Formats: sequence, structure tokens, C-alpha cells
Amino acid sequence: MHFLAGRRPEQITEAGGHANPPVATIARLGLTAPAMDQTALLTAMPHQHVIFDDGMALDCGVRLPRMAVAYRTYGELNAARSNAVLVCHALTGDQYVAEQHPITGKEGWWEMMVGPGRPVDTRRFFVICANVLGGCMGSTGPRSTREDGSLWGTDFPPVTIRDMVRAQKLLIDRLGIGRLFAVLGGSMGGMQVLQWAADYPNAVFAALPIACAAYHSAQNIAFHEVGRQAIFADPDWDGGRYWQSGKVPARGLAVARMCAHITYLSEQALTRKFGRRLQAAPKNSGDAISLFGEMFEVESYLHHQGSTFVRRFDANAYLTITRAMDYFDLAADHDGDLANAFRGTTTRFLLVSFTSDWLFPTGESREIARALNRAGANVSFVEIESDKGHDAFLLDEPDFHRTVAGFLAGCAVHARL
Amino acid sequence: MHFLAGRRPEQITEAGGHANPPVATIARLGLTAPAMDQTALLTAMPHQHVIFDDGMALDCGVRLPRMAVAYRTYGELNAARSNAVLVCHALTGDQYVAEQHPITGKEGWWEMMVGPGRPVDTRRFFVICANVLGGCMGSTGPRSTREDGSLWGTDFPPVTIRDMVRAQKLLIDRLGIGRLFAVLGGSMGGMQVLQWAADYPNAVFAALPIACAAYHSAQNIAFHEVGRQAIFADPDWDGGRYWQSGKVPARGLAVARMCAHITYLSEQALTRKFGRRLQAAPKNSGDAISLFGEMFEVESYLHHQGSTFVRRFDANAYLTITRAMDYFDLAADHDGDLANAFRGTTTRFLLVSFTSDWLFPTGESREIARALNRAGANVSFVEIESDKGHDAFLLDEPDFHRTVAGFLAGCAVHARL
Repeated sequence: MHFLAGRRPEQITEAGGHANPPVATIARLGLTAPAMDQTALLTAMPHQHVIFDDGMALDCGVRLPRMAVAYRTYGELNAARSNAVLVCHALTGDQYVAEQHPITGKEGWWEMMVGPGRPVDTRRFFVICANVLGGCMGSTGPRSTREDGSLWGTDFPPVTIRDMVRAQKLLIDRLGIGRLFAVLGGSMGGMQVLQWAADYPNAVFAALPIACAAYHSAQNIAFHEVGRQAIFADPDWDGGRYWQSGKVPARGLAVARMCAHITYLSEQALTRKFGRRLQAAPKNSGDAISLFGEMFEVESYLHHQGSTFVRRFDANAYLTITRAMDYFDLAADHDGDLANAFRGTTTRFLLVSFTSDWLFPTGESREIARALNRAGANVSFVEIESDKGHDAFLLDEPDFHRTVAGFLAGCAVHARL
Repeated sequence: MHFLAGRRPEQITEAGGHANPPVATIARLGLTAPAMDQTALLTAMPHQHVIFDDGMALDCGVRLPRMAVAYRTYGELNAARSNAVLVCHALTGDQYVAEQHPITGKEGWWEMMVGPGRPVDTRRFFVICANVLGGCMGSTGPRSTREDGSLWGTDFPPVTIRDMVRAQKLLIDRLGIGRLFAVLGGSMGGMQVLQWAADYPNAVFAALPIACAAYHSAQNIAFHEVGRQAIFADPDWDGGRYWQSGKVPARGLAVARMCAHITYLSEQALTRKFGRRLQAAPKNSGDAISLFGEMFEVESYLHHQGSTFVRRFDANAYLTITRAMDYFDLAADHDGDLANAFRGTTTRFLLVSFTSDWLFPTGESREIARALNRAGANVSFVEIESDKGHDAFLLDEPDFHRTVAGFLAGCAVHARL
């Protein structure tokens, strides 16, 4: 199946579809995931991208000598270049926001939010999403090749949320866009939105940090560390040099994903979806999961989450990106007062949290709202009633979608769009 | 260091210290943990125990041909045999409630609750605690030897909370105790308390299920499954036959423990204790934990939790016991109505939950209270304000301790003790 044969090909703006296109050839790969192993898929698959030959200096002091930023766009940039919306993806997301995913074959991860007639309406807005720096879907990261031909692996320098945003800013500049109408994203995407608003206030008319926080909490760091230790514990990780052996630390990465996935849901959602229902355990599973002949449905669900994840994600990228989230502490970068990050801003903010999100609970969004108020910013804050946990921002939550659509409509009036 | 050299040797009742002692010789092992490897420690260390030569039939249909129940007692059984209190331990607990632990050298896990002058006052009560069936501290479990001399390993049959309680009942009978003044325990210990009250109502004057639920929730099953998968993913687990190689699946078990440990705390407690403080990463750690030269204190804390746990716990026992908790659903065993488990009971109940416990949230204790009310039982229910999470039941919570002491004092009047 050709991955461009998505459901809405009219959305896809190929290279040349907008005015400023020094972009690479778009990916056209006639492969679906099972046809190649993960190593080959993640290294061989081409993605639409730009190259920055001068590289970029990172917060850690290292300078990347050359940097690729992979991205996708949807809709058309208007003549005034004033209708661009940047979507920032979460930890395990990527640039395939609103089209079929080239590896999994699944629909885009935010098609409920982005598309024609959706809250972020691609008939009206030019939507951009870039794979984060440190990722594994075409932007430079641990699975990228260095100048000497070797893979970065765990030699890839640590990156920060600010580094990710800096790379996105280079992309936006390259695309000839001086000011983004809006920047939005959930979870780690929301962290990037906050960083954008703090670092480039004049380049952001509206900012929508969703289901996020201005710092990563001790508990969230702890859960990330469990995932990292699960990867380190897998002998196939091989000190990060698994690319050399052609193996991937699939079991460790799957455990990391399973653990993280629980934190994306809620007790209510898990009870509603699975409760304590049992099912027959798979025969010949070879694992003690079938010791007792049956297993709980929630276990089967987790196994599926773990096994599908390892087919599309690089373990070292997971280490790098979880670390970037852990490092994030916007107040610490501004003398300990988050308000300092936003003083004098003219950006309009919409903060959204979800009642059952225990990874980024409402209180953490409220702290951002208070800081924005102290900074004199224009801020709306909406807590959405939902039992779906953190992942609610990705799911069918009509109140949430109406809130975003309404906010963008109001901002469009103010921006004379 | 001799493990009987505890801080309060006067508490320790050796074999023969009470009236009905067909008990084995008490453990006297001049070893501390680092002196032996885990395999040797868990297999060689003798524990005070009784043997049931006729074995016991399990819920799964298997009959254990011969069964050991390891236990410890504190205080003196009175002449009327009416002052016995059974303490039920949690998933990774054991019988060393109120004395130095023979492997870790640490004080007993519930010395705040049990001891002279404590809420469960050993000057007044005869306190018994047995290692659960399926455990690894002397009661029959996966690390025990079969009749043919081989180790059970993963051939050990699945056990239920009811099986654990059944084994405890045999012990209590053997000790010549017809009725327990009280049965108390937190977490999985609380599940056992509920099972005791349901199965042997006439043998339980007072029941104190603490920080528990009448069933294991989908989210809790999910977290357990992450831990099990971490163990299965460790090649040293070797299909459960690690005893043959002399290895232990230390990395997998440590990951399991780290993940579980987060669920025992609370976001507030982790923030209060660690926040986002950094420390230097250990040099030569050989792990990517030190990729960035520093780590968060909460990570170091988790590593410590993981590495100390593997020295005292058997991986297959962890699999067996987590499974027993997952299976627990007392209402399902009584036609779907928890009240049926308690109809006609004369046992006096004290339910305790903690505000910040998200593993067994207050709502789940409230469900038990409602069922007990429907059954016409005598029930008190106290929610203790605490930011310490699930582990609050093990920690310094004066309100909690006063509540238990007051309840037991009232029950003692009613029992004419």
C-alpha cells in the first residue's frame, strides 16, 4: 500500500505546494511495516525534510554539524503568509498528523483536530508539523548517520525542549513564515508550545498548550526512568549499539511503552474498557503470561500497545526524548518565576487540561495560568470534563474540540485573518 | 550481625514461648545479605515454620502434597487463648513484622504498629504473622523444593488470596487458637483480612482491612503486568528456571519493583521528597543513566529500591503473588454481590483508607463499607488525611495509629478481653 494513498489526498501539500520550497523529495515508499524489519524501516524510509547544513548549537554545548528536520504540511499558505499553524507532537508522536502513517498504515494521530472542517481547519489554515529533534521519523536523532557514516546511537547529544523548538524555528524561517498564527500541541507538544511562546513571542499570535505542564514532575520523571531502565535491562540494547547487530531491544522498549501507556489513561477508562474481563491466553506464547491459561483483557491490550510500538519507534530516540521532557523546567530557566518567561507577551493563550489526566493534572495547568496572569498575558483556561485520562487530548472529546475551534475563531478575528 | 539481635529482643517469642509449639527451630543465621548471593539466601535460610504433611488443596484444583507455613509471633498467648491477633502482610512483605529482618538487617516492616505500647500492643496481644503461601521467606512457594528434590519454579501452581488465608487458618488451628481477636493488614494484607472475615466469620472477632479493595482494578492489574513482563524480558529469568543456572533475573525484577514502587507513593510525596533536584550520576555506572553526567534524585531513589529488592525477593514468587492479587474479586465469588460475603457476620470491622492512595483509592474502601452496611455488619470507616500515598499504612501517621488503637480498645471491651 502506498502511504500517500491516504483518505484525504487533497490535504497533502507536496514539495512545491507552497511558495518557499527548498525541501527534499517527499517520501514514496511502497512498503508496509511487516515487510521490513524495524531497523531497515527507521533508517531507510525517506521523509519530507529540510537540511540545515550549518547545523545547530544545542543547549548542552554540542553543535550538531548538520541537521535534518522532517515535517509535513496540510492546507495552503496564504499570500500574506499569515495563516500558518504549527502543531507540536508528543513523546511518541511524529509529523504524520492528518494522513495515513507510512509505517503503521493507521490514520494520522490528530485527524480529529486537524483537517477540513476540523477545529484546526486545513481549508483555512496552513498546518505544519515537524518531527522533533532527537526523534526517529526523519529529523536528526540517535538513529541518524553522522558525517563519518556511523550512526549516532547513544553518542547523540542530549537535547532539550528548547532545542526542539529552535529546530522548528529554523524550519519556519526556511518556509518564509515570520509569524505563526497559532502553535498548539498536547503533552510534550504543549511543553514546546510554552517554549515557543517564551522564546519567540513575536512569532506566535496564539498559543495552545494542552494537557501539559511548565516542568516535569518527580513522579513523571520516575515513570520515565522505569522505562529507560527497562530498555537498559534488555541485552539487545547492547549499550545503545544495537544498530550494529541488527537487533532492537524490543522487549525492553515494549515494557517501557506498557508502563507509560498506563499513565496516559485513567483508572476509570481502564475499568470502563476492560474491567476484570478474562480471555484465553495465546497458546504457545512461551511466556508465563499463559501460565494460568487465561489472562485479563487489559493485559492483552497492553501487550498489543508494547508490540506495535517497537515496530515504529527507536529505543535510543525514546531515551533522548524522555530525557528532554524530564529536563523541562521553564521557570528554572527564568530565575525561578514562570511569569518571567512571558512578561510583555502579546500572544493569546488557551490552556486546556482534562479532569482525569493524572500525568499532567489540572493543577499544573493552573500554575501556568497564574504565571500568565502575573505576566499580564491574555489567557483562557478550560478544564475539560473527561474520564479518558491524559490521552483525552487525542480522542473524541467534543467539548475540547469546540473549545479549540472557538478560541481559534476568536483569534482569527483579532488577527484579521 | 545476628538477626535476632534486634532492638527489642524481649518481644521475640521463640519456639516454645507459647503453649502449643510443634514448631521448627527458629532461624539463627549469622549472615547479612551481601555475604551470600540471593539464591543461597532465599533457599538456605531457615525460618520458623510448621509443616502440614497432608498438604492443602488449592483453588486451582491442584493439591500441594506437603506445605510449610513460616511465621513469627510476638507477645504471649493468654490462658483463654483469646488475645491472638493475626497480621497479614502485603505483596512484598513477610513475617518479620516487629523485629530485625534476617536478610536486610532492617527493622520490622510494621514496628510502628506492632510492639510494646504500639497500637497492636504486644504486652497485651499475642501477634502472629505468617509468610503467605507462594512467598519466598519460608512458606511453600515457587522457590521451595518438591518431593523429588527439584524446585517448583514456575511449575508452582497459581494460588489465590483464599488459598493464602486457608493456609493461615491451618496455622491458627495448629496453634490451638479457635478465634482470633483481630485480623489486620494493609494492601494485599487487607485483601486477606476480607477473605478471613468472609470465610471464617466465627474465627474473627474484629477485622481491619486497610488501604485495600475487594477486587483488584484494571489499572492495578495493568501495573502488575508491566512488572511481570519486565521479569519475563530478562534473559536471566530463563523461562522461570533461573535456579538451575544460579542466576536471578535481577534487572527485570528491579524494573518491576521500581514501577510498583511509584504506585505505592503519591505525586505529592515524590515532589516533597525529591522534587526536581539533581545529583551527580555514579561514575562507571556503565549505563546510559549517566549519559548526561547527572541524574534526578528520584531516579537514584528508584534504583536503590530496585537493587535492594532483588536481594530479598524471588522473581517467581513475585509472579505468583501479583497473580493472586489480580485474581482477587470477593464479590465475584459471592454471586456478584459483596454483601453476600458478609451476611450474618458478627465480626466488627474497621476500614481505613488514605486520601492520597491512588492504588487503592478511598472509593474502593467505600464500596466495602456499603456492602458491609447492606449485610448489616458492624462497621467503622475512616479516611485518613495523608499525602504519603498507599504506603501511608506503613509510615508514621499518628491519626491512623490512634484510629487502630482506639478501635482495638473498644473491641477488647466488647470481647471482655
